[in-house]
Amino acid sequence: MSKVNLKDLAKALNISVSTVSKALRDSYEIGDETKKKVIAKAQSMGYSPNPYAGFLRNQKSKTIAMVLPELTNNYFIQAISGAEAIAHENGYHILIYATNDDKEKESGILNHLLNGRVDGVLMSVSSNTSQYEHINELIQAGIPIVFFDRICHEIETAKITTNDFASGFLATEHLIQSGCKKIAYLSISEHLSIDHKRKQGYLEAMNKHDFTIDEQLIVQCSTDEKSNTQKIKKILTSKNKPDGIFASVERLALTTYQVCKRNNISIPNDLKVISFSNLRTADLLNPSLTTITQPAFEIGKEAATILFKHLAKRKSIIPNENIVINSELSIRGSTNPTIK
Amino acid sequence: MSKVNLKDLAKALNISVSTVSKALRDSYEIGDETKKKVIAKAQSMGYSPNPYAGFLRNQKSKTIAMVLPELTNNYFIQAISGAEAIAHENGYHILIYATNDDKEKESGILNHLLNGRVDGVLMSVSSNTSQYEHINELIQAGIPIVFFDRICHEIETAKITTNDFASGFLATEHLIQSGCKKIAYLSISEHLSIDHKRKQGYLEAMNKHDFTIDEQLIVQCSTDEKSNTQKIKKILTSKNKPDGIFASVERLALTTYQVCKRNNISIPNDLKVISFSNLRTADLLNPSLTTITQPAFEIGKEAATILFKHLAKRKSIIPNENIVINSELSIRGSTNPTIK
Repeated sequence: MSKVNLKDLAKALNISVSTVSKALRDSYEIGDETKKKVIAKAQSMGYSPNPYAGFLRNQKSKTIAMVLPELTNNYFIQAISGAEAIAHENGYHILIYATNDDKEKESGILNHLLNGRVDGVLMSVSSNTSQYEHINELIQAGIPIVFFDRICHEIETAKITTNDFASGFLATEHLIQSGCKKIAYLSISEHLSIDHKRKQGYLEAMNKHDFTIDEQLIVQCSTDEKSNTQKIKKILTSKNKPDGIFASVERLALTTYQVCKRNNISIPNDLKVISFSNLRTADLLNPSLTTITQPAFEIGKEAATILFKHLAKRKSIIPNENIVINSELSIRGSTNPTIK
Repeated sequence: MSKVNLKDLAKALNISVSTVSKALRDSYEIGDETKKKVIAKAQSMGYSPNPYAGFLRNQKSKTIAMVLPELTNNYFIQAISGAEAIAHENGYHILIYATNDDKEKESGILNHLLNGRVDGVLMSVSSNTSQYEHINELIQAGIPIVFFDRICHEIETAKITTNDFASGFLATEHLIQSGCKKIAYLSISEHLSIDHKRKQGYLEAMNKHDFTIDEQLIVQCSTDEKSNTQKIKKILTSKNKPDGIFASVERLALTTYQVCKRNNISIPNDLKVISFSNLRTADLLNPSLTTITQPAFEIGKEAATILFKHLAKRKSIIPNENIVINSELSIRGSTNPTIK
């Protein structure tokens, strides 16, 4: 049997999680009648007297969570390091939760955090997250969230990103300047803010240089590696094949490399490749990979800094703020035949 | 001010953590006098009435921790995935803690877990961990640990590893059969069980083939990338330079690749390289990297399976058991010039 939580209570009482939470905390904002109702219901439903949250009010959990789509991505690993540096300074531990890029798992994790086992959350949303109730509930329960990278525009809080539009533009223009005539864009999810902005940058650069946009060259990939491999192979072996690929995320560039290797497509001679990536081995690949390198460590650091600033003030609503830290273009062999 | 925990109480009372823990749990094993003393001390020191542990006895935390040396290592990322598959089946969440391969941080994390925020721990120790008090305390506090990969022989519990000795032997023999005459071994830490066994395998293969052991070719590396780079560069540019390198861990193989690239040393012509590694991009490196590939996913799965079996029985002491899941040799371009 799963444990009764704030959400279950709120549902049973037909009031908001926020009200339940405040009632149990004996907040001045809630009337006595409501408090009594909430406490009675909590008892009848066997809601355990919230040991974590009680603990928290007296002594903080000294823990924050990072909720991330995947760990097999150097961007997130570097962001963890950045956040850890700040957590350590503040005497905090970081718990890492991986959603496997799945909205259901993400909801389950945030639900699990409702009991207050952490003081705050740094989060990058899953690529199929398009509704945000589970995120709002956590904030209403008094646990602040700071977004980084894959953000939710719809939620009021601090958001740390890189200059995705400008970097998408730069990446595409670099392919054009390297001689590409037909440039494909590999998208990871249409729901993701970062993907949308990178694609807008791609489209803008194509427009600037009077390139025709070919919808067939905008490839909608997903978290399914097998299907991505098939889609990439299909365009690279079609009549209408591109001579340049801009991968929105690292994983898709690696799949492109695998497809090229298996099908004897030479990078950069037959196909030039550029990707958003923080791969440690970008330099050691065959050929070395031209990347848009994000300041992942700095982004993690900044996200944690803002969260701790607000934790110190014991504020759970963080005012809306957009912080942008710029990425850098690193030109390597996959777009330049003179570099090994 | 940091919170008073079981360990602080035990120290103040000059009795074991285990006794304190049992006294507070009102265990039949502890006499009334001791219980009274413990409770009095707990009150006087402001020990909070252990909300997590109280919570746990009635309703489990439904959470386990994985305590790992580093996240920038595909082995551990794959082990997490394996453990998560089992945790998910059991309705559990996994918290990931990174020790950054540092014993001090490792101690801090286990201390943090003493309050019972998790039901059990899967652990791979830091490379500088040579004393185990912090690990014993956790087990005595009723939180079982299962080791995998970097294990502690000194502690009674289940331990999941790969066939490190046989794989070290196989790796070295593969270099010999590929024509190497002078083979260096890159060690990551003399404290680590896995490193010791891999090195023994190396020495045994050298002996079998009547190769002289040259102590200068056994390079003691560390977690300091800069120092590793210098050490590897030094042997690769010395008069006594090796024509084969066996890297005990992935990170050292990548450093070797970087050093070779910068110093125009051609792999595999001038130097053949083999490494324990679960790198996703092993196949895409220049040249592709010959690896001893560990069944990391399976190892994580097995470790979690054993932990959950014991959690179900509510036993905190897991009987000693050594489970070995074999690695595989994947021959690629770094030891064979005919493979790209």
